Amino acid sequence: MHTKLIDNLVIKKATKIVFLVMDGLGGLPIKDGGPTELEAARTPNLDELAARSVCGLLDPIGYGITPGSGPAHFALFGYDPVENNCGRGLLTAAGVNFAMTEKDLFMRANFATMDKKGLITDRRAGRIDTDGNRRICQKLRENIRLLSGIEVFFETEKEHRTLVALRGDDLNESIEETDPQTTGRPALKPNALVPKAQKTAAVVEELIEKINAALADEPQANTMLLRGYAKYRTYPGLKDRFDLNALAIASYPMYRGIAKLLGMTLGDETISIEDEFAILEKYYQDYDFFFVHIKPTDSRGEDGKFDAKVAVIEKVDRMIPVISNLNPDVLVVTGDHSTPAALAAHSWHPVPVLLAAKTCRPDRVKTFGERDCIVGGLGRMPTTALMGVALAHAKRLAKFGA
Amino acid sequence: MHTKLIDNLVIKKATKIVFLVMDGLGGLPIKDGGPTELEAARTPNLDELAARSVCGLLDPIGYGITPGSGPAHFALFGYDPVENNCGRGLLTAAGVNFAMTEKDLFMRANFATMDKKGLITDRRAGRIDTDGNRRICQKLRENIRLLSGIEVFFETEKEHRTLVALRGDDLNESIEETDPQTTGRPALKPNALVPKAQKTAAVVEELIEKINAALADEPQANTMLLRGYAKYRTYPGLKDRFDLNALAIASYPMYRGIAKLLGMTLGDETISIEDEFAILEKYYQDYDFFFVHIKPTDSRGEDGKFDAKVAVIEKVDRMIPVISNLNPDVLVVTGDHSTPAALAAHSWHPVPVLLAAKTCRPDRVKTFGERDCIVGGLGRMPTTALMGVALAHAKRLAKFGA
Repeated sequence: MHTKLIDNLVIKKATKIVFLVMDGLGGLPIKDGGPTELEAARTPNLDELAARSVCGLLDPIGYGITPGSGPAHFALFGYDPVENNCGRGLLTAAGVNFAMTEKDLFMRANFATMDKKGLITDRRAGRIDTDGNRRICQKLRENIRLLSGIEVFFETEKEHRTLVALRGDDLNESIEETDPQTTGRPALKPNALVPKAQKTAAVVEELIEKINAALADEPQANTMLLRGYAKYRTYPGLKDRFDLNALAIASYPMYRGIAKLLGMTLGDETISIEDEFAILEKYYQDYDFFFVHIKPTDSRGEDGKFDAKVAVIEKVDRMIPVISNLNPDVLVVTGDHSTPAALAAHSWHPVPVLLAAKTCRPDRVKTFGERDCIVGGLGRMPTTALMGVALAHAKRLAKFGA
Repeated sequence: MHTKLIDNLVIKKATKIVFLVMDGLGGLPIKDGGPTELEAARTPNLDELAARSVCGLLDPIGYGITPGSGPAHFALFGYDPVENNCGRGLLTAAGVNFAMTEKDLFMRANFATMDKKGLITDRRAGRIDTDGNRRICQKLRENIRLLSGIEVFFETEKEHRTLVALRGDDLNESIEETDPQTTGRPALKPNALVPKAQKTAAVVEELIEKINAALADEPQANTMLLRGYAKYRTYPGLKDRFDLNALAIASYPMYRGIAKLLGMTLGDETISIEDEFAILEKYYQDYDFFFVHIKPTDSRGEDGKFDAKVAVIEKVDRMIPVISNLNPDVLVVTGDHSTPAALAAHSWHPVPVLLAAKTCRPDRVKTFGERDCIVGGLGRMPTTALMGVALAHAKRLAKFGA
C-alpha cells in the first residue's frame, strides 16, 4: 500500500468529495441464477451515475477476509485496517463523546440478565431502552468505588449497550472478554492474557462483583458483560493527512466514534435516511469531505431480509438527486463490506463501488451492480486505495517525481 | 499479503475443499486468432461449473515471472513462494519418503553418460528404467565411503533421477550445480559459492570421484550430475496453519514431496487420472482438504503437443462428475502455472481458475477458458490469496475486527 505516499502528495484545492457509504452493500443471490440485492433493486439514479462513473469492486481488508465494521471503515478513509485495528471500546468511547485521557481503558459493555445460579439468561437484558440504561448507569456511578483507587465511568450508549471506562496507571487491555456468547452459562472470568495484565484483571473482577451487588435488585439488567477492551489511542486525522475538513453524517455511535477518532466533525444525530441527506444539504458549504453513513442496508442483510435490503437501497436511490444537485467534485457510492441477506452476516465478497467525477475516465458499466462492476475501470482494488483515488479525482494530489 | 492474518482467523468447520490442479493448465494459441488448449478443449462439465462459479486469473509468483513447479505449488497452498522457496533436493527427499534429519544436505541427481574424455554425452543416461536405477543405487551404497566420515545416501526416485543425501556437521548448500545443461561438455565442478561452503564443496568433489570410479563399468549410467542442493528445512503444515486434514493425490514424487513437507497425507501412488479420482472417492469421508494433481497437462505442454494437451484436459473434464457427485463445499479448478504447447515450456501467463461454492458470488463467465476468466469475479489475483479465498467460501474464517 502507498498510503504514506498519498499523504505526501496532498495539495490544497477548493473541491468537495462525498462518500455515500451503504453499510453492508455487497450481496449475493438468494436463488440460483438470481440477482443480488443491489442488482434486484430499481435504482435509476444510481444507474445513471454508474453510466458516467468509473466503477469497480473493493476488498476492505484482503482477499477472503470478512471485515468487522470498524476496520472496514478505517480502510474506506485510507487507513490500513490491520495496523490501525482497535478494540471496540475505543470506538464506543469516541462515539459517546467521552472525554478520553491517556490513562483510560475502555470497554463496550452489555447489560444482561443473570439467574440465581449465576447463569446468563439474556445477553441483552431484554434490550432495555436507552432511558432505562441511563437510570442504571446513574445508579452504578453512585454506588461503585474501586479499592485500588482506579476511577470508573459508565456512559450510556444505546439500549443495552454502555461504555465502561477505567482510569488509572498501567492498565492493560490484554484480558479475556466476559461475554459467554451464549445463554445458560455463567459469564466468563476476565482473566489476564499476559502477565502484565494481572493487575487490570483483578480490577475488572472487583468491578464486576460491585456491579452485580449494585444491580441485585434490578429485574432485567442485573449484570454486565464486558468486551472490546481498548486502551486510549489516537490517530492522525483526515485534516492532518489529507487536508480535508470532514463532516460525518451517521446515526450509530460506533460510526460516529470512528469519524471522531479520525478528526471529523460530527453532524447532528439523525434517525432517518432523509434526515441524513438534509444535514448534507445544510452543511454543504462548510466542509469539503462528507461521510454519509447508511446503516439499514447492513441491518436488513444481517436479518437475512433480502427484500427489505432491496427496499433500503431503493430508498437511498431516490435520495441521490439531493447529492447530484449539490454537484460535488467527486461522489463515491460504495459500502464498507458485503452483508448478503443469503448469509445473514458480513462476508468476504468484494464491494461494488462507483466514483463519479468530471475528471473520471468512464467505463462501459451502465448499471450499478456487483456483476457489472467486475468489468469497471477501477478493477478490483483494495479499499484502502479508494481515498487516494478520490483525492486524485478532486485534483487534491500533486504529481509524484519530475 | 495478509497470509499471517488468514492463519489467525481460522475456525473449525465440517466443510470440505477440493483443489483440482491441472499442472501447466494455462496455454496460448498455436495460430493467430486461434484458441488456447483450454479454449479448444470440449469441456461441457467444466463449462457448467464455470457458469455457477466465480472465475479469474492467478499469478503464481508475480507479474511476468515464470514459476517452477515447486514455488507454484507453495503459492497454491497459501505459502509465499519466494520466502518458502527451497532447493529441489528437499522436495525429492520428502517425495521418496527419506527419513530426514537436521544434519542433511539433499541433492537431486541425474544418472548420466560420460565419454572417455570426460564429456557428458547423455544428461539422462538414456533414461534408464527405475529398476536399473535401483540396481545402481545399491552398487553405490556398497562401494562408497567418504574420507571425511560424512554419511551418504542414495535413494531411487524414478527413471534416471535419484536422491543423494549427505549427513554431517556444517554442510552448506551454496555450491555450484554440476549439470552442464548441454551435452559435449564436461560436468561442472561443485565449486563453493561462499567461503563457508568450501568444506562441503570438497566433500561433493570426493563424492563425484568415487561415484565415477564405482560406475566405471556401467555402459550408460557411468556418472551423476548433481543439482537442487537443499539443506533440511521444515514448514508449518496445513493442519497447523489452516486446521485442514489434507490428502494429496499425486503420482509424481516431487508433488508428493511438497505435499508431505506441508503435512498432507499421501494417497496411494497412482498411474492414471482415473485412479486419482477413484482415490478421491475412496477417502472422501476421511479428510477435509484434497489436492488432486494432474501431471500430463504440463508434460504435453512441455513436449509442445497442443492436441495432446487438449486431450488431457478433455479427459479430466469427463471425470468432473466424480467430484460433483461428492458435492464438496468448495471446488477449485486451476493449474500451478501455464505451460503453453506453443512455447514447449513453463510460462509467466496467468492461470485460469474457477471456484465453485454455494457461497460464491457468480459472475458472467459461462465457459472455462483464459479469455473468459479475464472478466471473472475473482479478477486477477495472486495465487497465494487462493487458499484464503477457498477457506472463506468454506466458512472456515472468522470475521476480522469488531
